[in-house]
Amino acid sequence: MIVVIRRDATPDQTQAVVDKIKAMGYGVNVSKGEERTIVGVIGVHDNKDVLAAQLSGLPFVERVVPISKSYKLVAREGGHADGVVRLRNGVEIGGIAVHVIAGPCTVEGRAMLLETAKHVKACGATLLRGGAYKPSTSPYSFQGMGKDGLEILAEARDVTGLPVITEVMDPRDVPTVERFADVLQIGARNMQNFNLLKEVSKARLPVMLKRGLSATIEEWLLAAEYIYAGGNHNVILCERGIRTFEPATRNTLDLNAVPLVKELTHLPVIVDPSHGTGRWNLVTPMARAGLAAGADGLMIEVHPNPSEALKDGFESLTFDRFASLMAAIRPIAEAVGRRMAAAEAAV
Amino acid sequence: MIVVIRRDATPDQTQAVVDKIKAMGYGVNVSKGEERTIVGVIGVHDNKDVLAAQLSGLPFVERVVPISKSYKLVAREGGHADGVVRLRNGVEIGGIAVHVIAGPCTVEGRAMLLETAKHVKACGATLLRGGAYKPSTSPYSFQGMGKDGLEILAEARDVTGLPVITEVMDPRDVPTVERFADVLQIGARNMQNFNLLKEVSKARLPVMLKRGLSATIEEWLLAAEYIYAGGNHNVILCERGIRTFEPATRNTLDLNAVPLVKELTHLPVIVDPSHGTGRWNLVTPMARAGLAAGADGLMIEVHPNPSEALKDGFESLTFDRFASLMAAIRPIAEAVGRRMAAAEAAV
Amino acid sequence: MIVVIRRDATPDQTQAVVDKIKAMGYGVNVSKGEERTIVGVIGVHDNKDVLAAQLSGLPFVERVVPISKSYKLVAREGGHADGVVRLRNGVEIGGIAVHVIAGPCTVEGRAMLLETAKHVKACGATLLRGGAYKPSTSPYSFQGMGKDGLEILAEARDVTGLPVITEVMDPRDVPTVERFADVLQIGARNMQNFNLLKEVSKARLPVMLKRGLSATIEEWLLAAEYIYAGGNHNVILCERGIRTFEPATRNTLDLNAVPLVKELTHLPVIVDPSHGTGRWNLVTPMARAGLAAGADGLMIEVHPNPSEALKDGFESLTFDRFASLMAAIRPIAEAVGRRMAAAEAAV
Amino acid sequence: MIVVIRRDATPDQTQAVVDKIKAMGYGVNVSKGEERTIVGVIGVHDNKDVLAAQLSGLPFVERVVPISKSYKLVAREGGHADGVVRLRNGVEIGGIAVHVIAGPCTVEGRAMLLETAKHVKACGATLLRGGAYKPSTSPYSFQGMGKDGLEILAEARDVTGLPVITEVMDPRDVPTVERFADVLQIGARNMQNFNLLKEVSKARLPVMLKRGLSATIEEWLLAAEYIYAGGNHNVILCERGIRTFEPATRNTLDLNAVPLVKELTHLPVIVDPSHGTGRWNLVTPMARAGLAAGADGLMIEVHPNPSEALKDGFESLTFDRFASLMAAIRPIAEAVGRRMAAAEAAV
Repeated sequence: MIVVIRRDATPDQTQAVVDKIKAMGYGVNVSKGEERTIVGVIGVHDNKDVLAAQLSGLPFVERVVPISKSYKLVAREGGHADGVVRLRNGVEIGGIAVHVIAGPCTVEGRAMLLETAKHVKACGATLLRGGAYKPSTSPYSFQGMGKDGLEILAEARDVTGLPVITEVMDPRDVPTVERFADVLQIGARNMQNFNLLKEVSKARLPVMLKRGLSATIEEWLLAAEYIYAGGNHNVILCERGIRTFEPATRNTLDLNAVPLVKELTHLPVIVDPSHGTGRWNLVTPMARAGLAAGADGLMIEVHPNPSEALKDGFESLTFDRFASLMAAIRPIAEAVGRRMAAAEAAV
Repeated sequence: MIVVIRRDATPDQTQAVVDKIKAMGYGVNVSKGEERTIVGVIGVHDNKDVLAAQLSGLPFVERVVPISKSYKLVAREGGHADGVVRLRNGVEIGGIAVHVIAGPCTVEGRAMLLETAKHVKACGATLLRGGAYKPSTSPYSFQGMGKDGLEILAEARDVTGLPVITEVMDPRDVPTVERFADVLQIGARNMQNFNLLKEVSKARLPVMLKRGLSATIEEWLLAAEYIYAGGNHNVILCERGIRTFEPATRNTLDLNAVPLVKELTHLPVIVDPSHGTGRWNLVTPMARAGLAAGADGLMIEVHPNPSEALKDGFESLTFDRFASLMAAIRPIAEAVGRRMAAAEAAV
Repeated sequence: MIVVIRRDATPDQTQAVVDKIKAMGYGVNVSKGEERTIVGVIGVHDNKDVLAAQLSGLPFVERVVPISKSYKLVAREGGHADGVVRLRNGVEIGGIAVHVIAGPCTVEGRAMLLETAKHVKACGATLLRGGAYKPSTSPYSFQGMGKDGLEILAEARDVTGLPVITEVMDPRDVPTVERFADVLQIGARNMQNFNLLKEVSKARLPVMLKRGLSATIEEWLLAAEYIYAGGNHNVILCERGIRTFEPATRNTLDLNAVPLVKELTHLPVIVDPSHGTGRWNLVTPMARAGLAAGADGLMIEVHPNPSEALKDGFESLTFDRFASLMAAIRPIAEAVGRRMAAAEAAV
Repeated sequence: MIVVIRRDATPDQTQAVVDKIKAMGYGVNVSKGEERTIVGVIGVHDNKDVLAAQLSGLPFVERVVPISKSYKLVAREGGHADGVVRLRNGVEIGGIAVHVIAGPCTVEGRAMLLETAKHVKACGATLLRGGAYKPSTSPYSFQGMGKDGLEILAEARDVTGLPVITEVMDPRDVPTVERFADVLQIGARNMQNFNLLKEVSKARLPVMLKRGLSATIEEWLLAAEYIYAGGNHNVILCERGIRTFEPATRNTLDLNAVPLVKELTHLPVIVDPSHGTGRWNLVTPMARAGLAAGADGLMIEVHPNPSEALKDGFESLTFDRFASLMAAIRPIAEAVGRRMAAAEAAV
């Protein structure tokens, strides 16, 4: 951590800052430049942001510049190779095979889910998605089928062999969702619901952590660190678009984040072009772009009849369009030296 | 709700869309312009966003334009006058008197809280703030004193007579926090933690709902609607800055939101210039600006020794600076036809 | 254009709005919904944004919703197929062949430019980039070599046969730049420098229009419309990243824009991952992603010695890394049914 | 400037970076922390951003942290008191008196401008605004009356004694605008039109520089530095709202910028709540808030008949509403220890 001393500080005032930092138990390295003096603070381990705030409040401190990253366990720099998250049916996310997670935004009923699950499996998807607990901006909108939805998802897994991923929104629901699902999803709006993160950090199942609508990459990785530090090392990241000034798409899919996160961490990364664009006709090109940027998989909304979907109909693919997407992404996966994971899904 | 038909749709294709909408049970009004046909959908009450998504997915629909607001109970247009939220000690927020909520970001111990409470009361604050459960971006940072902190807050209330506001982050903690606090605070990161909103909608205490870091005003009011619709009509809004591209301040305090929200709803609005700027030396001018824009009160971080604060030291005011702030805002309150609420706090 | 009448307007007040719109010479279609009356305005051709502002100011008007797009000539909906922009040496941008525009951010001297031009040509680039007039955030930074730089660029074209693209910042410089360059570049900071747009709309050369840092897609297409409407139909768009809250990358490359702009217009689209990320190690994955999303070409910064570059050294590729990029993107181009344009560049 | 060395660099690799920096002619101060080594670079004067980019490109450099601000002449830290800009009729901006600049967005004709000028003067405005050259997002919208508009403005000054401020968009127009106006306005879209900045830096008239839609405060001050460094020391800043994700207001007026810019520079600051909100009914509260935050003046759009305005009708005040605004802001000016400048305008 570096403390920049104000230009108008006298030598005595500067020394007072140095003495204060030493009194807090840290080492210092003072560098007098032509315009300013800067003080390197040595031996900072935990509570970096607290220390930064404290030092910022000292007299004659212009600002404090943190140097080290504040996440550790998920950081690549520990020498980690690419991490692989293994699901209980043996599916591995983060290896050379690329996975497609597909299904409806929301479980609306048994028939539609089973029909969708069979179709996406036939097209090559290797995980099934579907929301049982749904975050809704309006209190008057459909909030999901709850436990009934979980049971339908479990049945679809039994029928198709596809492992199931579904969102958990409430720390009280974690045990229930664990009984039915194979991967716990933390949605974008809950990325900084820290008590929920702590709860899933104690779960047995892998967790897919979606990036918050306005979360910086550092905040996202710190949220992953919560799960990792709590004891759950099976964390998958999911880029799903950020909020910007652009009104033409629902979100701005930040694909820069994919290679950057691969550089900064050892965690696998999934891209969700359905939420990331909010428009079905952009899903296939952005799915291709996501794989080309280096993603380990994709998350795609598929619905038997999007115009009757109870949520997010405009971004869902029909069955035919999903089949076309699967055909369109295979050559991209191969062009980046990966392969589609379909074969492994045969259980 | 208005459906814009694509320019290249034939009359039959347009009619098919109209028939579909009618079959869903809605009335229609078709308007053929020179460039496009638009269809007004009549009789939409609930689930507006779902319907919009469904209609967007129909063939030959270019886009769907929602017309009515999706919040109702908190909307001003029902003819509501300015709402007033009354706390259990009789303090009223939203009337002609302007309130200052002051205290440390975090309860760090008994002595510092009592000292701060006495000071802010002496300066004219009418509510005491202090965090017992703290959202921390990093898992390695201080997470708050929990129930011990709540007990200290309650003691400070007993000593000073100031009602206490504190954050609740977890639906499981609502009953406990209710036992000790006078107002429940929902923090910015939990503005769309819908299960938490539902839980506090059943609480007996008023709720102060902070705006999310990247929440639109409509989303903020819909979050308030969750609380209102669940049965708790004592909702106070708090503007605390939004996330923008500007790095010089921690957040961008959006004061446009104050008069706009006063126009759109009947709920009282508080401004938090401490989080809204992240820099103590901007707090007083922005506190003045907040009142000038029409806020019903302010929320200010005060700490006996900001450079030793465990959180957010850089934005906290010292005791002296808080006294100066209180002196600086009084003429502004009077200039906009309000008065400082200090006298009422004498219990 | 649709006018939404306020809920509290009486029938007479609504009629007054209708009469006013009729008096302005437009047709109307009135639709009385259960909550609100909306008025469709028929026969609006030009000055849509002015009319919208005027109508918004009428009493009892809640808001005005524009329906038609305000750009026309560059819009796809006129039935246009994909447009192709042909340079004077016969190179075509927007066809099946994918182009790579490469070179240094800034022309720093004759030797470095010629060396770079030869290298990028050898690797398969088909256009040469290089700045002679440079927009610099600070007045104390290098502002480019000006006309001397243009002469060096022209020499590099003579030596390599690569057509040259370079930025013009000032309407007074357009004739000079036209004498030396093959494509005029309008930089992000000048996307809404309307007098400059008008000037290049009269130029003989094609124009590549970079998206502004915070320009919506609609504003970008309207800027292209300025050039098109002024008589220059050879317009190429370039997505180069937008400004968001994320500090880890210099800009957020908005690849959603690529398929969206291909849908909305007939203009070719180039992606610039060098400026779009600001980090050399993200350039290759994002170049791949750009092509996978459907771009017609890429713009890449290459420098013989990035750590000595006078501008933007951190995002430039070394010669070796550029060679690797060219190898890495070829399979992506083929995976999306395109081919690299290298062969055509042999002059 | 500080160079952070990567954790995995060997001592030899670190030494190589240090040697390279020394070879560039700078002093160094090496600080070995427990996690990382950081190198302070001493003696950096100009071209800081170029040097930062160069150093970032060195092997084993993790990142470069600039320490000093890159603007100098406009910086407060040189010991400057508050600056005052004096117009040729003696009006002073930046002193204790607060100014209101008022008038229509656009000069639409002689009668409307004279009528407006007389009204705003009668209400206490001390400068007249009005656009003769107008930036229009669409090529099909009104582009202003040009030189005819300037002549009308000059006539209004002769009649009322109010100095005139008007926008210049093109370096070629500066001499013409100088002949008619008293203050040159640089609009938000031209804040980084560097050739225009250089041109007005040589003008005799004061310049009001609006903040760009997505300009950071540092970029804004660097744009001011362009004008100052070119020889024109009469620069006034104008905050007019930034672009954020919020759709409910046209821009987000960033009042944090007001006290921050007063701290960082010695230049006067004006607030424009008309453009900053885009809604006439928010103009008065935000005008009050702007003065309360410490602005030296306000810029307000006034139109005799907003619903017939050729531009920005929705944000313009009627004559009556402007009179009310003037009454509403006076007590705020006094509450912050200022006074309204009206008396001085009597010429």
